[in-house]
Amino acid sequence: MKKVAVIMGSASDLPVVQKALDKLDSLGLPYEVHVFSAHRTPEASAAFSKTARDNGFGVIIAAAGKAAHLAGALAANTTLPIIGIPVSSKTLDGLDALLSTVQMPSGIPVATVAIDGAENAALLAAEILAVYDGSLADKLDETRTTAREKVLSANRELEEKFGK
Amino acid sequence: MKKVAVIMGSASDLPVVQKALDKLDSLGLPYEVHVFSAHRTPEASAAFSKTARDNGFGVIIAAAGKAAHLAGALAANTTLPIIGIPVSSKTLDGLDALLSTVQMPSGIPVATVAIDGAENAALLAAEILAVYDGSLADKLDETRTTAREKVLSANRELEEKFGK
Amino acid sequence: MKKVAVIMGSASDLPVVQKALDKLDSLGLPYEVHVFSAHRTPEASAAFSKTARDNGFGVIIAAAGKAAHLAGALAANTTLPIIGIPVSSKTLDGLDALLSTVQMPSGIPVATVAIDGAENAALLAAEILAVYDGSLADKLDETRTTAREKVLSANRELEEKFGK
Amino acid sequence: MKKVAVIMGSASDLPVVQKALDKLDSLGLPYEVHVFSAHRTPEASAAFSKTARDNGFGVIIAAAGKAAHLAGALAANTTLPIIGIPVSSKTLDGLDALLSTVQMPSGIPVATVAIDGAENAALLAAEILAVYDGSLADKLDETRTTAREKVLSANRELEEKFGK
Amino acid sequence: MKKVAVIMGSASDLPVVQKALDKLDSLGLPYEVHVFSAHRTPEASAAFSKTARDNGFGVIIAAAGKAAHLAGALAANTTLPIIGIPVSSKTLDGLDALLSTVQMPSGIPVATVAIDGAENAALLAAEILAVYDGSLADKLDETRTTAREKVLSANRELEEKFGK
Amino acid sequence: MKKVAVIMGSASDLPVVQKALDKLDSLGLPYEVHVFSAHRTPEASAAFSKTARDNGFGVIIAAAGKAAHLAGALAANTTLPIIGIPVSSKTLDGLDALLSTVQMPSGIPVATVAIDGAENAALLAAEILAVYDGSLADKLDETRTTAREKVLSANRELEEKFGK
Amino acid sequence: MKKVAVIMGSASDLPVVQKALDKLDSLGLPYEVHVFSAHRTPEASAAFSKTARDNGFGVIIAAAGKAAHLAGALAANTTLPIIGIPVSSKTLDGLDALLSTVQMPSGIPVATVAIDGAENAALLAAEILAVYDGSLADKLDETRTTAREKVLSANRELEEKFGK
Amino acid sequence: MKKVAVIMGSASDLPVVQKALDKLDSLGLPYEVHVFSAHRTPEASAAFSKTARDNGFGVIIAAAGKAAHLAGALAANTTLPIIGIPVSSKTLDGLDALLSTVQMPSGIPVATVAIDGAENAALLAAEILAVYDGSLADKLDETRTTAREKVLSANRELEEKFGK
Repeated sequence: MKKVAVIMGSASDLPVVQKALDKLDSLGLPYEVHVFSAHRTPEASAAFSKTARDNGFGVIIAAAGKAAHLAGALAANTTLPIIGIPVSSKTLDGLDALLSTVQMPSGIPVATVAIDGAENAALLAAEILAVYDGSLADKLDETRTTAREKVLSANRELEEKFGK
Repeated sequence: MKKVAVIMGSASDLPVVQKALDKLDSLGLPYEVHVFSAHRTPEASAAFSKTARDNGFGVIIAAAGKAAHLAGALAANTTLPIIGIPVSSKTLDGLDALLSTVQMPSGIPVATVAIDGAENAALLAAEILAVYDGSLADKLDETRTTAREKVLSANRELEEKFGK
Repeated sequence: MKKVAVIMGSASDLPVVQKALDKLDSLGLPYEVHVFSAHRTPEASAAFSKTARDNGFGVIIAAAGKAAHLAGALAANTTLPIIGIPVSSKTLDGLDALLSTVQMPSGIPVATVAIDGAENAALLAAEILAVYDGSLADKLDETRTTAREKVLSANRELEEKFGK
Repeated sequence: MKKVAVIMGSASDLPVVQKALDKLDSLGLPYEVHVFSAHRTPEASAAFSKTARDNGFGVIIAAAGKAAHLAGALAANTTLPIIGIPVSSKTLDGLDALLSTVQMPSGIPVATVAIDGAENAALLAAEILAVYDGSLADKLDETRTTAREKVLSANRELEEKFGK
Repeated sequence: MKKVAVIMGSASDLPVVQKALDKLDSLGLPYEVHVFSAHRTPEASAAFSKTARDNGFGVIIAAAGKAAHLAGALAANTTLPIIGIPVSSKTLDGLDALLSTVQMPSGIPVATVAIDGAENAALLAAEILAVYDGSLADKLDETRTTAREKVLSANRELEEKFGK
Repeated sequence: MKKVAVIMGSASDLPVVQKALDKLDSLGLPYEVHVFSAHRTPEASAAFSKTARDNGFGVIIAAAGKAAHLAGALAANTTLPIIGIPVSSKTLDGLDALLSTVQMPSGIPVATVAIDGAENAALLAAEILAVYDGSLADKLDETRTTAREKVLSANRELEEKFGK
Repeated sequence: MKKVAVIMGSASDLPVVQKALDKLDSLGLPYEVHVFSAHRTPEASAAFSKTARDNGFGVIIAAAGKAAHLAGALAANTTLPIIGIPVSSKTLDGLDALLSTVQMPSGIPVATVAIDGAENAALLAAEILAVYDGSLADKLDETRTTAREKVLSANRELEEKFGK
Repeated sequence: MKKVAVIMGSASDLPVVQKALDKLDSLGLPYEVHVFSAHRTPEASAAFSKTARDNGFGVIIAAAGKAAHLAGALAANTTLPIIGIPVSSKTLDGLDALLSTVQMPSGIPVATVAIDGAENAALLAAEILAVYDGSLADKLDETRTTAREKVLSANRELEEKFGK
C-alpha cells in the first residue's frame, strides 16, 4: 500500500499535525513524519519530494504557517497529490498561510484544507488512496457512519434536554 | 479508467470551468459535465454524489461562487475526493467562495484550489488518478516539462531582449 | 401557534445558541432544539427541513461555524424563513461563517444576523411570527420598552456619577 | 394582505432594488417604494417605520450602501421584520455595507441578505408573509420548482454538449 | 466655554470611554456623559443631538461597537462636529465598528478616530474648541511638549541601557 | 475668518479633492490648495503645518493614498484639527489609506472621513469653524435642509412611478 | 560594480517589472533580467540564487503574484538581500501576493515593497548598493531632489490655479 | 564598519525589537537603539535620519504599530535603506501597521518584513551590510547552516519518534 508522507515546516507545528497522525493511525494507513522547511532546508524538501513516488508514497501532506510555501515547494518537485494545511500563527489567524497555500499559479496544484484542518488532511489523503482501494473506501464510509451517529446521538440528547 | 465529474453550480460558471475541461481533454481523461446546485437542486446533487463511485467516477470537481456550498454538499454524500473551485463573482473577488469552500468542518474534507483555479483542479484530479496509474503520472511529468520549457524559453527571450 | 426550530450544526454550538433559547423562553414561544449537520447528517437535515412546515414550524433558526452551510442547506429544502447565525470559531473570528451564511445565491434566501447573534435570531423569529399575531407584537414592543428603560437608567446613573 | 415596504437610502440604489420589485411583482405581492435616508431624512425614516405596522405593512426591505444604517434605523422604530440589503459602492465591494447592516447589537435584529441581494430580499419577504398564508407558500414552492427545472434543463444542455 | 458631550452606545463601553474623560479632565474641559443607543433609544439620541448646540455643546464624541450607528445617528440631527470612536468587541477586532462609523455617505460627516481611540477623541474635541481659543491651543501645545519629552526621555534611557 | 487648508499628497489626487473645493466654494469658506508630500517634501509639509495657525488657518484637510502618512505628518506639527481623506488607488480599494490615516497613536488625532470622502471633509471643516460662528452654522443647516428636500423629492418621484 | 538581478515569476509580469528596469537604467545600474518560476522551474531558480553572489550580483529583485513564493524561494538559497514585489492579479488585488511575500518565517528575510511597487524595488536595490558607494548615494539624493522639485512645482501650479 | 540603527516608535515596542538586538549581537554587528516617534518627535526623527549616513550608519531598522509612519518618515529624510517592522497591537493583528509600512508611494521605498518580524529585520540589515563584506556574508551563511541543522535534527527526532 502507498504510504502517506506528513511533512511539517517546523517541529512547533506538531500539535496541529498530531490530529492528522491520529486519524491516519485510526484508518490503519502507513505514514512517515518529517520536518522539512521550504526556506531553511530547500534541498532536503526538494530531494524528498522528487523521490517520494519512487519511495512508495501516494500522497504528501504539508503543514506550514505564515508565508506557507512548503506545500507549493513540494508540489513543484512531484506530480503526487500534495495536501496543504495552512497553520495559524500569532497574528492574522492563518489568513496569510491560507492564501500562501491555496492561491497556487496554474500548473502546480495544492489541495488545500481548512486553517489548522489536520484531521481533514488525513481524511483527504485516505480518500485519494481509496479511489482504487475498495476496502479503504469502506473504512471511510464507516467513519462517516460513526460521525453521523455521533450527531444523531447528540441530537437525541438535546431533544430530551429541551423536550421535543 | 475512473472518470472525472465536473459539476458547476450554475451554467454561468462554464467560462471558468472550461479551462478544467480543456486540461482534462489534453490529458485524455474521461469526464462528465453537469450543472447541479446545492441550493436549487439539492436532491439531484445528493443523488449524483451518492452514486458517483458506483458509476465509475474517481474524482469530483465542483465549481461554485458566493456562499459556495456545492463542493461541501457533494462531499457530504460520498467519500470520493472532492476538488472545490471557488468562483469569483461581482463583489468580494471570490473571498466568500474561497472561505465557504475551504473552511470545511472536521470529518468532511474538500480539496480546495485557487479562486477561479480550474486548470489546477483538473491537474489535481489527474494527480489523484495517477497515484495508481504510472502512465498518467508520466503524462503529468510531461506537462511539467512543457511548463518548465515554456518558462525557460521566456527566460531566454527576455535575456536576449535585455542583454545578459 | 407555529413553533420555532432551533438547529445547530454541532452540540458544541450550544453555548452560543443558549441565548436564543432563553429569549424564546422569555417570549413564551414554543420551540424545538436539534443538532443536524449539513455535512455529517445531510439526509436528516433535509428531511427535517422538508417536513418542517407540515410539522407546525413557522421559522427555522440555524447556527453553524466555519464553512457554515447549515442555514443554506435547510433553506434549499423549504420555503419557510430560515434565520442563520454565523458562529465564530478559533480562527477568522466568524468571518468565514458570516460569508458562508449571508452570501446566498439568488433564489434561496437566508436571513442572516450578526456573528454569534443568537438573541437577535430569536427576536427576529418572533418578529416574523408576530406579523400576523398582534399579541406577540405587543410582547415585542414591551421588550423594546424594557431595553429602552435599561439604557435610560444606565444614562441616569452615569449622569449622576459624572455630574450633569 | 400585508404590504411590503421597499425603502432605499438613495434613488441611485434603484438599479439594485429593481430586482426586488420585479420579484414582488411576479409573486403578486402588494408593495410601496420609498426613498428615505437614515442620515438625510432621519425623521421621515422614523415616522415611516413607527407607523408601518398600523399602515398595513408586514415586512420592510431596506437597501443602503457604505455605512449602511438605514435597515438598523428602521428596525429601531418598529418590531416588524426588517430585511437589509447591503449595497456595494465604488470601494470595498459592499463589505462596509454588509458589516454595517448585519452586525446589529442585541435587541434590534436585521435580517441581512447578500451584498446586492435584492431578489433574495423579496423572496425572504414573501417567505415571511407566507408563514400564515398557504397559498403564498404554494407560490413560493412553484418558484423553487421553476428554479430547479431551469438548473436541470441547463444540466441536460451541458450533458448533450459535452456528451455524457 | 462650549461643553463636550461624550455619548456611549452602551454602559459597557465606559472602560474604553474613560480615557477620553480623563483627558478632558486633564485639559479642564467641561463635559457631560450620557448613554444613548441609536437603536434602543433612537428618540433620546435624536432629541439630545437636535438641542445640543442650543444646550451649549460645541462637540459631541460618540463611542459604539459592531454596526456602530451612534455617531452617524447623532450627526444626522445636528451640524455640530461629531467625533466617532469605533469600539472593538468580541469578534472582528472593531473592523465592523470602524467601517460603520467612517464610511458615512456624502452630506453627513463623522470625524472618526482609531479603534478604541478614546484619548484621541478627547484631544480632537479640544483641538476643535481651540480653533477660536488661544489659551486652549496653548494647553494642547503643552500636551505635545509633554509627550515629546516623554519619548525623548525614553530614548535617553534606552541609549544608556544599550550604550550609544 | 479662519481659512481652510486643503493639502493633497500628489497632484493626481485633485479629481478626488475637487469635491471638497466645490463644497467649500458653495459654503463661501476661504481656502488655500497645496500639494505637499509627507515623503517627498517632508520639510515643506512640516513648515506649512507649524505655521498654519499663525497664518490664519483654522482647519487642515489632507488627502493621500496608499501608506497615507500626510494627515498624520501634518498633525504631528500642529494642534489645529486635521481632517484626513483616505484616497483609493489601483489596488486594495483605499483600505491601506484608511488604516494608515485613522489608526493614529494616542496623542496625535486625525479626524478621518470615508474613503474618497472629500465632500464630507469640507463639511466637517465647516462644522468645526461653525462651532463659534452662528451664521456658518445656519448655512450648514441649510445644506441639510437642501439634502433632505432632495431625498424627499426623489421619494415623491418614486412613489408616483411605482404608485403608492 | 555589483549587478542587480531582476527575476519575474512569469513573462506576463513584465509590464509591472518594466518600471524597475527603467529606474535601474536611469540610475545607470547594471542588471540582468530573468524569468524563473519557484514552482515551474524550481531548480533553475535555486541554481541562479546559489551562484548569484559569485556571479557578481549584489541584490536580487523578485516579482510574483498570487501565492508568491519566488522571493522566498530565492532567499532560501542565498544570503544576498532579496527584494520582493507582490504583483496584483485578477482577484484579491495582490493581498495574497503581499502576504505570501512579506510574512516570511524567522531566519529567511525578504525585503518587501508595495503591491506592484516595482519602481521602489529598484530604488531600494540602489539604496542597498549605495551603502558603500558614495557616488551612487549622491545619485539617489538627486532623485529625491528631483521628486521634491516636481511636488513643489505642482504645488506652485495649484496655488496659481486656486489663488493663494 | 557601518552601524545599524534600531529605532522604535515607542519604548513599549522593546519586547518585539529585542529579538533584532539579540540577532545583531550574535552577528557582532555594531548598533544603536533609539526611541523616536514620527508623530510625537517628528524633528528628532528627521534630524536623526538626515545625519544617519554621515554618522556612520549603513542601515536603519524602524519598528512601529497601528498607523505605522515611522519607517516612512525616516525614509523621507535619507537614502539609506530603511527596514520596516510592522508591530501588532491590541486590534487588527498588525494589518494596519503592515499596510502603513509597506504601501509606500513611488520614490521612497521601505524594505518591509513580517508583522513582528524583528529577527528577520536584523538578518536583512546584515545581508545589506554583507553585500560588500565577504566575512559578514560568511557569518550569514553559517546562520543558515545552523538553521538547517536545527531543522534536520528536529526531523531526525520526529523520524525516530514516529518510526520511519
